Amino acid sequence: MDTITYRPARDELAYTFGGRIPVAHVRSGGMLQVHTEDCFGGLVRGPADLPSQVCRMPYLNPVSGPFFVEDAVPGDTLAVHLASIVPARDWGVSSTFPHFGALTSTSHTATLQPPLEERVWVYDIDRQAGTVRFHATDSDHIVDLPLDPMIGTIGVAPGGFEARSTIVSDSHGGNLDTPELRAGTTLYLGVNVHGAMLALGDGHARQGEGEACGVGVEIATTTTLIIEVIKGVPTVWPRLETDTSIMSVGCARPLEDAYRIAHRDLVGWVVDLTGLEQLDAYQLVSQAGRAPIGNVCDPNYTLLAAVDKLLLPQPQAAYDGVHARFRQHTDGPR
Amino acid sequence: MDTITYRPARDELAYTFGGRIPVAHVRSGGMLQVHTEDCFGGLVRGPADLPSQVCRMPYLNPVSGPFFVEDAVPGDTLAVHLASIVPARDWGVSSTFPHFGALTSTSHTATLQPPLEERVWVYDIDRQAGTVRFHATDSDHIVDLPLDPMIGTIGVAPGGFEARSTIVSDSHGGNLDTPELRAGTTLYLGVNVHGAMLALGDGHARQGEGEACGVGVEIATTTTLIIEVIKGVPTVWPRLETDTSIMSVGCARPLEDAYRIAHRDLVGWVVDLTGLEQLDAYQLVSQAGRAPIGNVCDPNYTLLAAVDKLLLPQPQAAYDGVHARFRQHTDGPR
Amino acid sequence: MDTITYRPARDELAYTFGGRIPVAHVRSGGMLQVHTEDCFGGLVRGPADLPSQVCRMPYLNPVSGPFFVEDAVPGDTLAVHLASIVPARDWGVSSTFPHFGALTSTSHTATLQPPLEERVWVYDIDRQAGTVRFHATDSDHIVDLPLDPMIGTIGVAPGGFEARSTIVSDSHGGNLDTPELRAGTTLYLGVNVHGAMLALGDGHARQGEGEACGVGVEIATTTTLIIEVIKGVPTVWPRLETDTSIMSVGCARPLEDAYRIAHRDLVGWVVDLTGLEQLDAYQLVSQAGRAPIGNVCDPNYTLLAAVDKLLLPQPQAAYDGVHARFRQHTDGPR
Amino acid sequence: MDTITYRPARDELAYTFGGRIPVAHVRSGGMLQVHTEDCFGGLVRGPADLPSQVCRMPYLNPVSGPFFVEDAVPGDTLAVHLASIVPARDWGVSSTFPHFGALTSTSHTATLQPPLEERVWVYDIDRQAGTVRFHATDSDHIVDLPLDPMIGTIGVAPGGFEARSTIVSDSHGGNLDTPELRAGTTLYLGVNVHGAMLALGDGHARQGEGEACGVGVEIATTTTLIIEVIKGVPTVWPRLETDTSIMSVGCARPLEDAYRIAHRDLVGWVVDLTGLEQLDAYQLVSQAGRAPIGNVCDPNYTLLAAVDKLLLPQPQAAYDGVHARFRQHTDGPR
Repeated sequence: MDTITYRPARDELAYTFGGRIPVAHVRSGGMLQVHTEDCFGGLVRGPADLPSQVCRMPYLNPVSGPFFVEDAVPGDTLAVHLASIVPARDWGVSSTFPHFGALTSTSHTATLQPPLEERVWVYDIDRQAGTVRFHATDSDHIVDLPLDPMIGTIGVAPGGFEARSTIVSDSHGGNLDTPELRAGTTLYLGVNVHGAMLALGDGHARQGEGEACGVGVEIATTTTLIIEVIKGVPTVWPRLETDTSIMSVGCARPLEDAYRIAHRDLVGWVVDLTGLEQLDAYQLVSQAGRAPIGNVCDPNYTLLAAVDKLLLPQPQAAYDGVHARFRQHTDGPR
Repeated sequence: MDTITYRPARDELAYTFGGRIPVAHVRSGGMLQVHTEDCFGGLVRGPADLPSQVCRMPYLNPVSGPFFVEDAVPGDTLAVHLASIVPARDWGVSSTFPHFGALTSTSHTATLQPPLEERVWVYDIDRQAGTVRFHATDSDHIVDLPLDPMIGTIGVAPGGFEARSTIVSDSHGGNLDTPELRAGTTLYLGVNVHGAMLALGDGHARQGEGEACGVGVEIATTTTLIIEVIKGVPTVWPRLETDTSIMSVGCARPLEDAYRIAHRDLVGWVVDLTGLEQLDAYQLVSQAGRAPIGNVCDPNYTLLAAVDKLLLPQPQAAYDGVHARFRQHTDGPR
Repeated sequence: MDTITYRPARDELAYTFGGRIPVAHVRSGGMLQVHTEDCFGGLVRGPADLPSQVCRMPYLNPVSGPFFVEDAVPGDTLAVHLASIVPARDWGVSSTFPHFGALTSTSHTATLQPPLEERVWVYDIDRQAGTVRFHATDSDHIVDLPLDPMIGTIGVAPGGFEARSTIVSDSHGGNLDTPELRAGTTLYLGVNVHGAMLALGDGHARQGEGEACGVGVEIATTTTLIIEVIKGVPTVWPRLETDTSIMSVGCARPLEDAYRIAHRDLVGWVVDLTGLEQLDAYQLVSQAGRAPIGNVCDPNYTLLAAVDKLLLPQPQAAYDGVHARFRQHTDGPR
Repeated sequence: MDTITYRPARDELAYTFGGRIPVAHVRSGGMLQVHTEDCFGGLVRGPADLPSQVCRMPYLNPVSGPFFVEDAVPGDTLAVHLASIVPARDWGVSSTFPHFGALTSTSHTATLQPPLEERVWVYDIDRQAGTVRFHATDSDHIVDLPLDPMIGTIGVAPGGFEARSTIVSDSHGGNLDTPELRAGTTLYLGVNVHGAMLALGDGHARQGEGEACGVGVEIATTTTLIIEVIKGVPTVWPRLETDTSIMSVGCARPLEDAYRIAHRDLVGWVVDLTGLEQLDAYQLVSQAGRAPIGNVCDPNYTLLAAVDKLLLPQPQAAYDGVHARFRQHTDGPR
């Protein structure tokens, strides 16, 4: 399998999806090994590195790319398999950030209140033990949380000549911030521009559902992807597939609109895969579905609609079985 | 253990929390076995029984109760353990309902569009096999879903002299519609009026997260509860405890406010149980928390903030360990 | 014209719509002169009277009533004409209130931030000059604002056996907090229970649109109403009529749902009054309509959809011309 | 005064703010006369021209520009005075559009319901009479509405290397769709990129508040602007000034966040202009403010916070009095 390895120089990092020229070309069927920086560009390394001081807008949440995918044209779907996500360092960081997060007023949920205290947490990452160690800042408390690496931000160039900040999630992907984007998952993204222009970054050693404080356990990663172009099959909103589930992604405010988008898409997907009539599919998803929350802090919130394949009647393989093909190239079961 | 058994006559069913006189008295520490009707009052039994025709507002979502809990006064907490939830029949029903549900415009998300078709689905319940069988209405498809009985509506009388429809969820509980209210769970509710006035109903054989179509697999049940009054400990929003997790409930629109309510409450609860300082608790919940969705269809949406006890540093037992005491009275592990 | 005068004793004040026995009976066609207390029950009289200290939940926002309206039954409409609203004192008060208002996090838009400072403003009311004088608390600045008295809270008992806090607005009316409820306006409310059970309070010497800080210039009033029962004509959401406009009220969160409710209702009302087909009415309201905001601080936000009668083609008189009949009984033009 | 006249060729029309090279340069203090096309690019001319058939995404809502403003750099404010807005033709059009508008489910408030009927309305514009004539499509009804021309879409390039669709409103301006953008108004926009890159289009002969059906009375215009760069004064959200009022604009979903953004900004502006302390300004705006709604249909809703200058204590002239200077160059009172 073709493999391309890419490690961006600092001045190659991108801060938008769209509006950028590609850093490399990949073929459909090829593998891509990418180094990604953390959301702070690696500048927050300890309690004294307050993000609002060491980072400068808009130089937050850098992505590596974009990658031009040969043969990808508008109307196709790009299938991106997350083969592995390896933390690049033995630590990660999180923080509060002034007027950002779910439990604070923000630039948009605007109030007259001062921000919460800005503070940094440094986590120890032990890849062997599979743990992420939380240290309280105001007491001696320590907890080991399970290591569960994920990619927070991944997407293609949006359509309509737009270029969107990497802070944003939308139908082109972007800052989805869902723990479901872990190794073993295949992501489907509709192609909006010639070459798709895939980019990714913002790894998390783990995050809670909703990313309440606005920041996960942020890490640089080495992430390995396998890519395939599904010709002539459009995809409106991002979709995910694992060995056991299919999931549709909605990105919107208010959060119920993200729920609606994701669930309407999943109902349509179930119709396509099973031949169920639409209201029957709506009924089945209503009883069998899960609704994992991604983020409730970014400019668009992210929520997924998921259903186990086993709970669908005789489903067709999604996207012509590409997920199963990808899994042949990767180690072990999940 | 004191046990009271209660089976309401049809004209004893209640349609509000508050504004009702009690049907029975229970003591703190007592057990209560209650028959509950389904959300349609048992009137929807087949495809021809369209809910909007056989049911009449406001006679929807009946609850059994209220039960006067001796010694419960405002400022106390009522701990209610769901010891068992047994489907009363070998079938359940679901439906679409005109302008109700997540994937339709509604009375409040008001549009000029006509409603979706109203349709009824009848499910077979096999308690031995542990399955709920979905039959498509427009094709031959059949799927067996896991039986996972829950109570959709449970609460106490609200404060402030209010009486609230059983369709509504709020800080007094009510139509929470979360699958987390299964057997083995302890629910904590703040007491607002003398005697608490507990009532419950609206069993589901199972439901998806969000209850997308607005209706679960609706069943009558025999539900067994154990009740204890925690004196002098107030509870602002409903909380849940299982053997492994603690969870706070938020009920609001838009859905992000339910997220905020639940997570702020959980952060405070974690502070109380662990001695973590507030921002440390916020950080830990942000990385370790889950956010299971209850409903995205009722007048207030319901969302939970959850954290595994194992991921908390040396937690105190919640509410003086009442959940563990309850579990001594109930069979087997979960 | 029959006139009833009512001045509640302190312990007669009501804190819910519904769940109360009537304080007086009125006939259709009768006049009612009611003394209303301010939202603080008259307890906040100067800078030292912080509302959260001198008031006690749920004893906020008292209303006078309920009044049993003879011959009003479910399915009728109660037309209530605000003939005059006279401030009862030469001062009014406003305040910030902890975690209440539009520019602060709240109990529902819950954050970890401390509340804004609680502070009281006392206004001078000069009925002759028609002014409400604002005094800055932190400087010498003074401004005279136009006196524009309104009733903040007015409604009937809700249906479905409910009793709702007077803090809430909904389809039964309640805490609408819109400046459009001034003298000269007729309010239409659907009757939900025998006798309608009208109550009112919460006068404001004036308020801005949205009542940003959560509190208007709160006053006690003597308010004169004329009441008529429109038999057999249901009204789903509150409606207003002035000499020049018709307006529909929506109460909901998020605010766009209040917009949707109000506009869908207004489109239907325009259809009824003009014979326009529905999409034509939607189009006309889209170009000719106004959308005055009531409150963006109460449990349900309030927003109105309004259209000038002159911009409607040959409209029928609304509710059989009751507004014009009311105006014959009241002084002067508006 | 320097005057530049610009009339775009069809293939010069722009569909984003940002990501475009300038079509002309203007100096601070200069006048600009711009021809703008309507939101349909002039392609909808009668009932048979259904927008979803004659227009093609993303070629909707074209703007003329961008104009490079000399000497404008990030951190400055661009003051844009709307000197005149003249309808270019004697007709305008409106329509319903599938799954777009406030009283329909949409791509984001996603449901399973089919769209409302797509239909076109053609209005006669009589500049002499000052009227816009509505013709019902399903009956003979006709109404003359007041002509009140406005610019729906005006903005500068966003920061952060973004390019945003002209359908969107945000802090850079864009598809604000507020009737307050009529002749006589000065708009203040923060400059994000060198040269500001001003563009405008989407004239309306008039629109209702909220633009309920998603489309105003769409017209091509000849619009005359006067432009001045306010050096070293940043502006975060768009602001408007008329002879009598100052207004802050908020763009967001849900609609209450637009309210919060606009009102927080207005409170800060009042502090700056009057020297009132922040809570005093909050109080004054709460009682004196208006909250005109722009749109409740575009990707971000728009809502304004307004206050009459006469109700502010001794205000300083905003932005160094530029509005008054602009008015010296324009005819007649408003």
